[in-house]
Parts: sequence; structure tokens; C-alpha cells
Amino acid sequence: MRIAIAPGDGIGKEVIPVARRILEMLLPGAEFFDVELGYEKWKRTGSACTDEDIGALKDSDAILFGAVTTPPDPCYSSVLLRIRKELDLYANLRPVCGDGFDIMIVRENTEGLYSGIEEIGTERSTTLRVVTRKGSERIARCACGLAKERRNSLVIGNKANVLKSDVLFRDTCLSVAAEEGVSARTAYIDALTLDVLMHPANYDVIVTTNIFGDILSDACGYLTGGLGMLPSANIGEKYAFFEPVHGSAPDIAGKGIANPIAAIRSAAMLLAHLGRTEEAEAVEDAVGFVLAAGIKTPDLGGDSSTEEVGEAVIKRL
Amino acid sequence: MRIAIAPGDGIGKEVIPVARRILEMLLPGAEFFDVELGYEKWKRTGSACTDEDIGALKDSDAILFGAVTTPPDPCYSSVLLRIRKELDLYANLRPVCGDGFDIMIVRENTEGLYSGIEEIGTERSTTLRVVTRKGSERIARCACGLAKERRNSLVIGNKANVLKSDVLFRDTCLSVAAEEGVSARTAYIDALTLDVLMHPANYDVIVTTNIFGDILSDACGYLTGGLGMLPSANIGEKYAFFEPVHGSAPDIAGKGIANPIAAIRSAAMLLAHLGRTEEAEAVEDAVGFVLAAGIKTPDLGGDSSTEEVGEAVIKRL
Ligand SMILES: CC(C)[C@H](C(=O)O)[C@@H](O)C(=O)O
Ligand SMILES: CC(C)[C@H](C(=O)O)[C@@H](O)C(=O)O
Repeated sequence: MRIAIAPGDGIGKEVIPVARRILEMLLPGAEFFDVELGYEKWKRTGSACTDEDIGALKDSDAILFGAVTTPPDPCYSSVLLRIRKELDLYANLRPVCGDGFDIMIVRENTEGLYSGIEEIGTERSTTLRVVTRKGSERIARCACGLAKERRNSLVIGNKANVLKSDVLFRDTCLSVAAEEGVSARTAYIDALTLDVLMHPANYDVIVTTNIFGDILSDACGYLTGGLGMLPSANIGEKYAFFEPVHGSAPDIAGKGIANPIAAIRSAAMLLAHLGRTEEAEAVEDAVGFVLAAGIKTPDLGGDSSTEEVGEAVIKRL
Repeated sequence: MRIAIAPGDGIGKEVIPVARRILEMLLPGAEFFDVELGYEKWKRTGSACTDEDIGALKDSDAILFGAVTTPPDPCYSSVLLRIRKELDLYANLRPVCGDGFDIMIVRENTEGLYSGIEEIGTERSTTLRVVTRKGSERIARCACGLAKERRNSLVIGNKANVLKSDVLFRDTCLSVAAEEGVSARTAYIDALTLDVLMHPANYDVIVTTNIFGDILSDACGYLTGGLGMLPSANIGEKYAFFEPVHGSAPDIAGKGIANPIAAIRSAAMLLAHLGRTEEAEAVEDAVGFVLAAGIKTPDLGGDSSTEEVGEAVIKRL
């Protein structure tokens, strides 16, 4: 088994080593290899992610990724978007769990406003939002598959009252849900974002288009005291990529105080993806134990360091 | 002075009469006239909003609007969007105030994903997101004008790391702010949504594109215990239109329990727009007094009716 490790920039370099140690412990036979990506690399070499890097990522059974810094330089194009595209990681799974709620946000990860079809001008610039039946169908199947393993309830986040392109998304999701026997309802993304914040316990699986999922999942970070807790998986037919939802956080990088929980939970999702459900649950349990014991980084009101939280989880395991 | 009153559907019919009574009291010389719009009218007459209705709305100094129901019928096109377009109401102002915070969300209201430029297909549907320099500039001027009357701080919500069309929006806003002497910074809309929820006191004026403002302002409803509290203004060069952020809420319509505060506050914004700042402040003060006295509708945990809350505000005034 081959696991690619790409810490990236900023706090990625602090939280990923912690998560890696956990994986090394729980996957003793696996081979771990590093892939350097990101802004630091770009500054040094002129490229943030080479074709060889993409090749290396593809030559793995799973990828653990940290975060990359995106400089304002207009020539710099997003590493994350390139990887999602080249590895066709169409399903972005973002679980949000807490006291009394357990939500799975399923974000379509390849189309919508991320089409890359843009026309730039000084007076007028445009981006094409693209919704396809094929793209909607595969993300709906993924969401329904998860709903069936969970509480069988799907909410389809959309803005079909304004965007006619979302009618295709909404209706495709509704038919897939009917076919799969999953109980589904639709909700407008604006009202949905508020309602999830107010009544998180009412939600099981939420499926939505790319940028709506982006905003919704960050908003849900509020329910867990910030992004430091939220892991994610980016899944395609062939490849699987795991990363904390948070970014590289240049403001706190280098201080050793970044919250490693999102990265550790991303490692747990990686384990589950490889069929190691018991190990994945053990990691989640250990995280719960450590938090309950008050061993927390400053973003959660604690005074522990990244290392201390990581060590505590490892010790518990 | 001529004030158009358009309650619309559902709870619009319950909250707008309350707000109207307040306006009638505070604008004794003004002429009030009704404009019927919405789904009920559509069912009865086949049209939700006629050219005559648009003419009537234009023949006013200000419009107080409730909410309209949008049926799933694909032939039905949004009344609200038509009005915003025909009256060129380019600035959607959505204040969010509470204990220790006072935020003004300035939503661009005419372009972005609301361009109406769509191609519908069974396999692929698209919506064109349009950003113009002119559109960005006028909304930035509006936001800077407000910032100067407030705490001189502007945050520009964007997703220029993914949408190149947002580079035009972001950079135009930055230059307008520099010109106007307003202190400005940029923030990605996903991270911004979370940060506003976590640290609302750090924000003064936020300017953003159409659908981001839509989602952000609903998310901020969380800070005020729901949408029942949030008023809005839609302002153009010639016309001004005031409405609660909430919708027609068919689920609670007819029960007399809808929260009238958002509508009453919209009336206060209307008063301020007409230069009646003292009256506007008096309405806000009366609302604060009534809430502090525990006279609240069920959405805020109280047991008062729409009428009771309205009467209490009127009595206080
Ligand atoms: C960094 C950015 C390209 C990315 C996105 O928009 O998808 C991020 O916000 C995320 O949510 O993973
Ligand atoms: C009803 C809908 C067209 C509208 C919008 O998207 O602008 C509403 O959500 C709002 O925020 O006023």
C-alpha cells in the first residue's frame, strides 16, 4: 500500500507530520512517500506542482494533503484545483459532527463555477457556471450511497429559483434519490445555510454544487468552533485525496499552535476509505477523548501545542 | 409623498400591514397605495406582476414590499428579480445588528450569477456569471459612502482565488476605496462567512457580489436568531424598495405568528431613506424596547402574535 504525503505550505507542514505518524502506526506495512507542492516550492523552483508531482500522486492508494498558500500573483494557478481536476476527484466529502449532530456535506467538486471557462476583460469579466447531468448524477449517487449507510435522508442544496442551471442539478438529484430509495428534499442554499446553523440535528446528508458546498462547509465550521476540526475527502473513480478544510494559515504558521485535529480526522477518513474502519473509529475515539480531557490548541480555547495534541492522540491510540 | 405598499404572499400579508401602520403614523402627509403582486395574483389572473404594476411601483417615492411565493412552475419567473431589474435597484443593503455588533452587508444586486444569461439543456445547463467594472464601481461607491458614515472599514468578499471574474470586482472595489479614503481589505467569501459568524464585532461594511451576498446575509441571520429580524433596502438611482430578508413562509402563514420586526425595520430604513432619520431611530428604539420587554413572536422563543408585537411597537412610539 502506497500513501502519498503532501504537507504543502504554512501550517500544513505542522499538522500533516502529526497525522502521518498516526497513519504510520496504524498502517505498519504501508509505504509512505513525500510529494512537495505549493507556494514555497513555486518560489524556489518556479512551479507549484509539476507533471511529475501529479504522476507521483496518481501512483498512490491514497493521498494525505495539508494546505497550500495561494499568492495574489495572477500567473499562479491553484494547485488544489489542478489536482482535483487531473485526478477527477469529483466528490468532496465534508463531515461536520458535534454534540447532537452528524452532517455529511457532499460537494460536487469538478464543475459549477469551477469550470475554468472564463473571459477576462477590463470592462467585463465572466465565468461560466456549468451543470451537467453526468456530473450531477454521479455526485447524487455518491450522496445517496452515503445516506443509505447513515440515516437515509438527503437534502439537495440549490438555487433553482434563480439559476435555471440548477434545475438540472436539482431534478437529477431527485431522480437518483427516488431510484435509490433515499428520502430527499430540496432547499435553497441561502435559507439552507441558515437552517443548518440553527438546527444542525435535522440534517444527515446534504448534496450541493461546488461553490455552494465551499461556503456551506466553511459556515458549518461555526458549529465546531472553527475550521480546525473539519476534515475532508476528495474522491474519484481512481484516486482518493484527504485534506483538512482549513488553509495554510500564514498568520499562525511557524508557531506550533495549529490545531491538528482536522488533519488527524482526514487521516481517519483515509483509513476508512482503505477499508480500515476499525482503525478509523479508533482515531475518532482518541480525538474525542483528547478533546474531552481539555487538551486543545488555542483556537479551541486551550493552551496545548500542535505536538501536544498529536502526542495525546497517539498515546490514547 | 407617495409610498407603494406591496404585501405579496404568505406572511407578507401579515407583517406589512403592521409596518404600514407605523409609516402612516410617522408620515402623516404621505399618500399610501397598494400594489398587488405575487403568486396569489398569478393564480387568479395569470400574471404575478404586470407592466402596470411596475409602472405603479415606479410612480412612488419609496416601496414597502413583503414577500412573494415562488412556485416550482418553470414558467413562473421571479417577481423580485424582475422588479430589481426594471427599477435598476443595484444596491441591496442588509444590516445585521445585535449585541456588540453592527454590520452592513452591501450586496451587488444586478449582475453576477443573476445575469439571466443561461443555456438550458437536458445534458448540460449553464449560467453566465457577469462582473462589470461599471457594476462593481457603483456598488463600491455605495459601500464606501456607508463606510464613511460608519466606522470607515470595508471588507470586500470575493472568490478571486478561483473566479478570475472576481479579480475585476475585487480590484475595482479596492481602487474605489483608495480613492474614497476608506480602509479596505479583501476576504474569500467562504472563510469570510465563517469569520463573520465567529467574530461579528470585527466587521463594519462588507461588500460582495450578488449570490455571495445572498448566502452571507442569510447565514448572518444566525447572529440575530433567524431571519425574522433582518430588514433590507434595494436602492437604485431613481427608486428605493424596502423588504424583510425573509420569504413568504407558507408553513406559518395564516397563523398570525410571523415576526413583524424585519418588516418594521424595513419601514425604518424607508424612513431614513426619505431623510426622516429621527423617525427611523425612534422605530429602531421602539423595537429594541419591545424585544427587551420580552414581547416576542415564537421564532424568538416568545408567545406573542404578530399583532401584539406590532401594537407594542406602535404604543411605544
Ligand atoms: C483554496 C480554494 C481553491 C478551495 C476551494 O475553493 O475549493 C478551498 O476554499 C476549499 O474549500 O478547499
Ligand atoms: C427569492 C430570491 C430570488 C431572492 C434572491 O436570491 O435574491 C432572495 O433569496 C433574497 O435574498 O432576496
